[in-house]
Amino acid sequence: MNQKPSLFTVVSPRLLDIYDISNGIVVVIDVFRATSTIATALYNGATRVIPVDSVDKCIQIGKTTGGITAGERDGKVIEGLAHGNSPAEYPRSFIAGKTLVLTTTNGTRLLHMALNNGASEVITGSFPNLSAVCDHLVAQNKNVVLGCSAWKDRFNLEDALFAGAVIERIRDHFAIHCDSSLMAEDMYRLHKNDIKQFIRKTTHWHRLAAYGLEADLEYCVTADQANVLPVYRNGDLVSLTGPAGGS
Amino acid sequence: MNQKPSLFTVVSPRLLDIYDISNGIVVVIDVFRATSTIATALYNGATRVIPVDSVDKCIQIGKTTGGITAGERDGKVIEGLAHGNSPAEYPRSFIAGKTLVLTTTNGTRLLHMALNNGASEVITGSFPNLSAVCDHLVAQNKNVVLGCSAWKDRFNLEDALFAGAVIERIRDHFAIHCDSSLMAEDMYRLHKNDIKQFIRKTTHWHRLAAYGLEADLEYCVTADQANVLPVYRNGDLVSLTGPAGGS
Repeated sequence: MNQKPSLFTVVSPRLLDIYDISNGIVVVIDVFRATSTIATALYNGATRVIPVDSVDKCIQIGKTTGGITAGERDGKVIEGLAHGNSPAEYPRSFIAGKTLVLTTTNGTRLLHMALNNGASEVITGSFPNLSAVCDHLVAQNKNVVLGCSAWKDRFNLEDALFAGAVIERIRDHFAIHCDSSLMAEDMYRLHKNDIKQFIRKTTHWHRLAAYGLEADLEYCVTADQANVLPVYRNGDLVSLTGPAGGS
Repeated sequence: MNQKPSLFTVVSPRLLDIYDISNGIVVVIDVFRATSTIATALYNGATRVIPVDSVDKCIQIGKTTGGITAGERDGKVIEGLAHGNSPAEYPRSFIAGKTLVLTTTNGTRLLHMALNNGASEVITGSFPNLSAVCDHLVAQNKNVVLGCSAWKDRFNLEDALFAGAVIERIRDHFAIHCDSSLMAEDMYRLHKNDIKQFIRKTTHWHRLAAYGLEADLEYCVTADQANVLPVYRNGDLVSLTGPAGGS
């Protein structure tokens, strides 16, 4: 078969069901900061990351698995949980061999929507694992949807920039007839050389920088610092590449 | 009051209800080609344009009003209607003093959603009436939502480019904390000097150019060729500025 697989970019979870994702790969993107933290924890040897969409579930699953519970609201660790959403909280010395139970609203919802709509595989993408995502998508040669988690369903720039970074690298391997993808690639090309400055203009920067997270956010737009491939398997995100889990 | 009114860009009708549009102005944008045709028909002296979302309604309202019925599918006039969606079909010699009943799916739906969500005013925007839209928004000094009609709820570039053109001109009059608006302005600045070339990359171009509509689409991204302000009043779009209706 000579026909290239398709690639679409979805700018909000609310638009996901417009696209046919059956038997395709969905890349869940939540640059600030869930998918950046997931890549980092797995890169640093976490056995698995369990993404959950509520604090109650996080506490409950933390108890049954003995995992580290994590989640933030307004820049602070949520009461009842042990840790926050920052990738910097999960160095190898702390997270290797452990389970991380991570509360994330936008990203977890998109992940479940992708599974319910028949995706054959769900992986997570972020700048820290950009190359691992690109290499996998090219190797699989299947239809791809780059799913931006957005913020409360609103389009956000940082997820679009990551989609654009992927597209710039793998465009020749896919048939791309999608204005969202053209936009994402243009935005990435326009800002790739000033990305740490540009993200200061985004709404999410303004929400998070107030909590002193500037260094965190700059890490989240830096490529290949945690180059693993998180793949969803039966409720867990596990690493298919790079440093194996286990201590 | 010194606080500037807000401005948001909504990239798909599905996302409209996320935004508070109560007492604000919604600009319905459907560059290819509904809102371009609406501006052109009113500029050329149409008494009013009645936007409808189905062929049956178009035929029925055409009968009761004596209006010209218009609508296309796949580049051809829909059976039972008299004319198509092209702005070029509505010169002054033909449309002056008449009512146009225009079938448009994406744009009409967004318009009704805006009214149902409490917008105080709905106007239509397109490159042919760019300046009239900008002048009105600055003069009104109210909150604004730039509503892209999209294509079957998918983000499209041509509507985003128009939103960006508006933002580039009026940004200093508004408080803009909105990634969609940042993106739209960036995309417009990036492509404003090659817009007739750039639109050839969009998905909508590929759908419509197959029907020989290239000149039509180039007109639809040319500023201020039909500089009126279409405002929705009790079911009709009427011109508040420029050449009055009536022959």
